[in-house]
Amino acid sequence: MTLIVKKFGGTSIGDISRIKTAALRVKETYDQGHEVLVVVSAMSGFTNTISKYCADMSPMFDAREYDAVVSSGEQVTAGLMVVALQDLGVDSRSWAGWQIPIKTDGEHSNARIIDIDGTELEKRMARGEIPVVTGFQGLGPDNRITTLGRGGSDLTAVAMAATLGAERCDIYTDVPGIYKADPKIVPFAKRLQKISFEEMLEMSILGAKVLHYKSVALAMRMGVSVQVLSSFENVPGTLLVGQDYMLEKDTINGIVLSANESKITLLGVKDEPGTVAAIFSPLAGAGIEVGMIVQDVSKDGRITDVTFTVELSNLEKAEKLLTAAQPKIGFDKFIADPNVVKISVVGGAMQTNTSFAQIMFDALAEKGINIQAISTSEIKISVLVSGKFAELSVRTLHTAYGLDMVKNE
Amino acid sequence: MTLIVKKFGGTSIGDISRIKTAALRVKETYDQGHEVLVVVSAMSGFTNTISKYCADMSPMFDAREYDAVVSSGEQVTAGLMVVALQDLGVDSRSWAGWQIPIKTDGEHSNARIIDIDGTELEKRMARGEIPVVTGFQGLGPDNRITTLGRGGSDLTAVAMAATLGAERCDIYTDVPGIYKADPKIVPFAKRLQKISFEEMLEMSILGAKVLHYKSVALAMRMGVSVQVLSSFENVPGTLLVGQDYMLEKDTINGIVLSANESKITLLGVKDEPGTVAAIFSPLAGAGIEVGMIVQDVSKDGRITDVTFTVELSNLEKAEKLLTAAQPKIGFDKFIADPNVVKISVVGGAMQTNTSFAQIMFDALAEKGINIQAISTSEIKISVLVSGKFAELSVRTLHTAYGLDMVKNE
Repeated sequence: MTLIVKKFGGTSIGDISRIKTAALRVKETYDQGHEVLVVVSAMSGFTNTISKYCADMSPMFDAREYDAVVSSGEQVTAGLMVVALQDLGVDSRSWAGWQIPIKTDGEHSNARIIDIDGTELEKRMARGEIPVVTGFQGLGPDNRITTLGRGGSDLTAVAMAATLGAERCDIYTDVPGIYKADPKIVPFAKRLQKISFEEMLEMSILGAKVLHYKSVALAMRMGVSVQVLSSFENVPGTLLVGQDYMLEKDTINGIVLSANESKITLLGVKDEPGTVAAIFSPLAGAGIEVGMIVQDVSKDGRITDVTFTVELSNLEKAEKLLTAAQPKIGFDKFIADPNVVKISVVGGAMQTNTSFAQIMFDALAEKGINIQAISTSEIKISVLVSGKFAELSVRTLHTAYGLDMVKNE
Repeated sequence: MTLIVKKFGGTSIGDISRIKTAALRVKETYDQGHEVLVVVSAMSGFTNTISKYCADMSPMFDAREYDAVVSSGEQVTAGLMVVALQDLGVDSRSWAGWQIPIKTDGEHSNARIIDIDGTELEKRMARGEIPVVTGFQGLGPDNRITTLGRGGSDLTAVAMAATLGAERCDIYTDVPGIYKADPKIVPFAKRLQKISFEEMLEMSILGAKVLHYKSVALAMRMGVSVQVLSSFENVPGTLLVGQDYMLEKDTINGIVLSANESKITLLGVKDEPGTVAAIFSPLAGAGIEVGMIVQDVSKDGRITDVTFTVELSNLEKAEKLLTAAQPKIGFDKFIADPNVVKISVVGGAMQTNTSFAQIMFDALAEKGINIQAISTSEIKISVLVSGKFAELSVRTLHTAYGLDMVKNE
């Protein structure tokens, strides 16, 4: 008998009736003769609400307590999903990460899975039970709950699928597959039947929200077949496929918007060795990743300004840390701008056609959209723009790169 | 150094600012040189909301899943309380019941605490750390979370206090002590400085919501000093004291309202041996307690009606169970009335003065309040009346028994 892992995101199980619909999807697969293991996120909105509680209580909240607090969301949906399945006559029970256990490295709020004990789950699935596992969380060496960071529930699903040798891992989200651009912004964006792990990885790293890059990387490494689909439309989604599905080298694979950005500028920084390290080391120590970095050319060779991006959710914490380190760093003024977004154009075409960057700059300039920072690699160009231009930028680039004319496969 | 256990109920920690206020109360005690251990309930309203999710999903929800779901509430408040304490500069960490562990007998949704391992907590308190423990929950022999039923957080606090030899257990609630009647209904009800365990036990058994009888009984048995107070008014509350504080034999100790009642009537039940057992055994099997029972005198010696009360939250489940058992029990019709309340008059006076019952019946009759069922014991009289008369009944009896004239101590 083959196993299918099914993971439901927050929108797919956002209320009682949606959980019932999701349970029907599970039962359909179960009735086809598969073993099924379910992984659930928290209800949509829950994690944000509860994160805000922590931030309101203290911007310097303890990551260990944050983990204990936010992990409650999946505990709720796992139990409710089991009740929904039982109501359909299926034998089922919920499993918190600590009960399985899903062991992690103990880095709170951003832990890595190091081991999953699947023995008991396999035994129970063999006799027809459907385990419902809390996504996003495991147990650290300190016997405390650790969360896996953004996209952690997808990661749980892919890791369970890899551990248990599942035939496929279905990721249910609020769109019925992978598109060349967010269909909420570009309604006629092309939906893909297949996408290679490599292409998906690029898009995810740059902020495509449908799948986090950690999950894509894990699936690629472990050879887990992943399908992205919607629980509302009962149709096949997009399949992530292996390396034999070749990259189309001369096309644009997607336009990706990341709204979870914020910009920090430190004015009047000393232009000397060690300054940049002094700025970034307290951030790194708190697990805050820095994205784009722009250092202005020093006018007098002694004083300069440094601009960089951090995830929006880290902005308040970063401000506290940098303000506390001000005497050591030595800057005049801290300026934060939460109203920025990152737009990326991804594709093999970047490698072969140097005019692709120019198309981007021209198209944005024509709409009066100011570029605040740029970063490039062999396979993508990213720009930082004001948040108010987010959707306009995506639509403009979708048109500029000729994607409007591409029909769905 | 002496230990004070402080338990905060849902209203005392109902939002971020209230949790901060509660944290201040903890710090005051800590700064006086005490060790402090905190026990928290879920935010007010949370448990009800989440219980409703379970009931909406399926009236026959699995108690083990219900426990997994509702126990998330204390996990949230424990983490937030720790963040609030850390923000006040106090060393603190949260403890879920399963982490300590608080071991229970495994009866889901109504478990009993059988063992608490306080070693690690004691070690940490000795070096100045404040543990914040999730109330209401422990770990069953099946390695799953078990909840302790109504009043479970108070029970956790009293049990922790007993295990760790605390000097006192402070129970913070939404009223600043124990009153002879609910001050929300009778604004001039008398507040007590002291009450004996025995008196409190009687009032709690009959539904006084301020403390559950299980907690009072445990405190009495283990000799734990309990104080009931409010976190909003920073003044001493009511102390529960030992047996040396004598019962006043000729007074009324209190008027107690229990709104968590519902009435079930089965029409056309066979009047023969075994029928009552057939009715109540499926309820007992599902952990549903039956309160008052009234069996009508059979008119023809063969067919009768049986009326009884169950907790309102169990009504839907009871209906399912009894309807399923209808062929076995053999009744004609199931009638449910969720709109009833139980009013009890408690006091030593019941033993010595037979006119006390008559005062009750007369006073209620005069206001046109119909009594639907009666139950009595040596120390109390309880009546079931329509829910719309709840407050009127309490006020009427408060006056009828001459309590309006009693000043606060």
